[in-house]
Amino acid sequence: MLQDQLQNKINSKTKPLGALGLLEEIALQVGLIQQTTEPFIARPTIMVFAADHGIAETGLVNPYPQSVTAQMVLNFLNGGAAINVFTQMHQLQLLVVDAGVNADLSHINDPHFIHAKQGMGTANYVSSVAMSEHDVQHCINQGKALVNTVAAGGCNCIGFGEMGIGNTSSAALIMHAITGIPLAACVGRGTGANDAQLITKINTLEKVAAFHQLHLIKHDPLQILSKIGGFEIAMMVGAYLGAKAANMVIVVDGFIATAALLIAVELDPSVLSHCIFAHCSNEQAHAHMLHHLKVDPLLNLGLRLGEGTGAALAIPLIESAVAFLNQMASFEDAGVSKSL
Amino acid sequence: MLQDQLQNKINSKTKPLGALGLLEEIALQVGLIQQTTEPFIARPTIMVFAADHGIAETGLVNPYPQSVTAQMVLNFLNGGAAINVFTQMHQLQLLVVDAGVNADLSHINDPHFIHAKQGMGTANYVSSVAMSEHDVQHCINQGKALVNTVAAGGCNCIGFGEMGIGNTSSAALIMHAITGIPLAACVGRGTGANDAQLITKINTLEKVAAFHQLHLIKHDPLQILSKIGGFEIAMMVGAYLGAKAANMVIVVDGFIATAALLIAVELDPSVLSHCIFAHCSNEQAHAHMLHHLKVDPLLNLGLRLGEGTGAALAIPLIESAVAFLNQMASFEDAGVSKSL
Repeated sequence: MLQDQLQNKINSKTKPLGALGLLEEIALQVGLIQQTTEPFIARPTIMVFAADHGIAETGLVNPYPQSVTAQMVLNFLNGGAAINVFTQMHQLQLLVVDAGVNADLSHINDPHFIHAKQGMGTANYVSSVAMSEHDVQHCINQGKALVNTVAAGGCNCIGFGEMGIGNTSSAALIMHAITGIPLAACVGRGTGANDAQLITKINTLEKVAAFHQLHLIKHDPLQILSKIGGFEIAMMVGAYLGAKAANMVIVVDGFIATAALLIAVELDPSVLSHCIFAHCSNEQAHAHMLHHLKVDPLLNLGLRLGEGTGAALAIPLIESAVAFLNQMASFEDAGVSKSL
Repeated sequence: MLQDQLQNKINSKTKPLGALGLLEEIALQVGLIQQTTEPFIARPTIMVFAADHGIAETGLVNPYPQSVTAQMVLNFLNGGAAINVFTQMHQLQLLVVDAGVNADLSHINDPHFIHAKQGMGTANYVSSVAMSEHDVQHCINQGKALVNTVAAGGCNCIGFGEMGIGNTSSAALIMHAITGIPLAACVGRGTGANDAQLITKINTLEKVAAFHQLHLIKHDPLQILSKIGGFEIAMMVGAYLGAKAANMVIVVDGFIATAALLIAVELDPSVLSHCIFAHCSNEQAHAHMLHHLKVDPLLNLGLRLGEGTGAALAIPLIESAVAFLNQMASFEDAGVSKSL
């Protein structure tokens, strides 16, 4: 019923039927999420979760040192990163969460910085679980609570970004565990592994997958997170669940953000109806993830930066979709003849 | 030299090499156009050229009546069209040009409306030339002059849109004449032809191509415009040439805008270095046009609306590209470690 009303409203606008393509689908989806023919986007926000990964200290999976995670958090707070530029340009709220950076950031006092440290990075999952199941549950609860606070502040559209040296490895393992796609097709170059580094990364993660017997826990997302997850990823899982519960429009960023979504969808498949997929990342496995979820992204710009940058760049398109639905004249209003 | 400086500046930013994908290419291109490592986008503008086509009165090529062109011009001036919504949302200047609408619009007094009427629509090119060669030259000069005025007003980034019932037919004929691609592959559904209408459209345009012997005038773009062009298309050709001469960043919209560009590039191939391709239209032949020009578009949203809507939606991405180049911190500035 509402779907028909929305489609009729879209079709009544002064344009050929369907001529706004994907933007028409977005307008319909946002209307259905908000259960209204007059949806709106309020206080759009990017929330970046940062944490470290024990495996990064081995140097087996990433060409940058682990210390870059903390350095980039400071860069976010100083306004120097790509996500700062894009959120400022598109008037988005930016919040940065210390989910578990391996550095003492407790002295930072900044309204855009949220202290939620679960630990000084995860343990190295080459030889132990990354975190306890208690940690997993705590991260998920924390993610939900943080998003609830943002929703209470008037935001109804949110994208999640991440920063964590080594986290494409965790994302690849999650993807492999949940989708069953062979690990070699789940692993990409991350921040820029060369050919030799990529082979080492794949071989290392093959050993990790065998060690943790990931093929046996496909339907136990909390165990997957415990064995090979990251604090930022676990917190993003909770953030997706919280955003769905708060009835927000969720803008899904790239490879790691979508890996967290795979877990969230296992826990609550209805999250998916609230998701708009911002872009297809240049991290090669992201296209397979999107295919697995049977979704089409808005952008395909060859981005592979994380931080929520793809989500930030897509939000103006979502705002444009909602604006055409609300602001364009109908054929009747404008006195324009319809097709013969 | 400048190219190396720009590339070094892009690579010094706090992100993995190449991680901003197409936006890095855009930043480089805008820097090269403006011949500076600190480019900027000023007063971005969409200029919509409107005109009528004699063939539209036959009903052989378009499902909407010709009167819709004038009705949509009034809709633009009342703020009710898609291009109004998108230019307002993204803070773009919108200018509408009467290049040859088949209605008396001389009473309109609006700072955003430009009177440049070349005639009450072109003649029906089924049985005569669409316009004289004198008309062609006058339209081109007019287009150049209008863009010069916009440039003098401080704009350095411009996209051209169009409104003209029947103008996908003119665009298809131009594409066929210049690229040699078979006409059936150049003709699409326009504003929404059904299967039977599409067959009639192709058959009609086959006759037009034969009548005007388009295969003989591939390298005479002014004759092509005279035989099967439109006033809005001819004026856009001049606008492209004027924008190149004024050293502007040119944002190329969809099927008809790119058809006009094909002509402009025949007249001055250097125009192409100033062009950023906004999107790939859902008008099927546009993808072939982009392929012919060997260019990649920024967006692929299934749009097929014209009016410059694709260009308007792409400008925030271009602004984002220029902003990251200017505003992001370097590894050195931010104290972030480079890759190992």
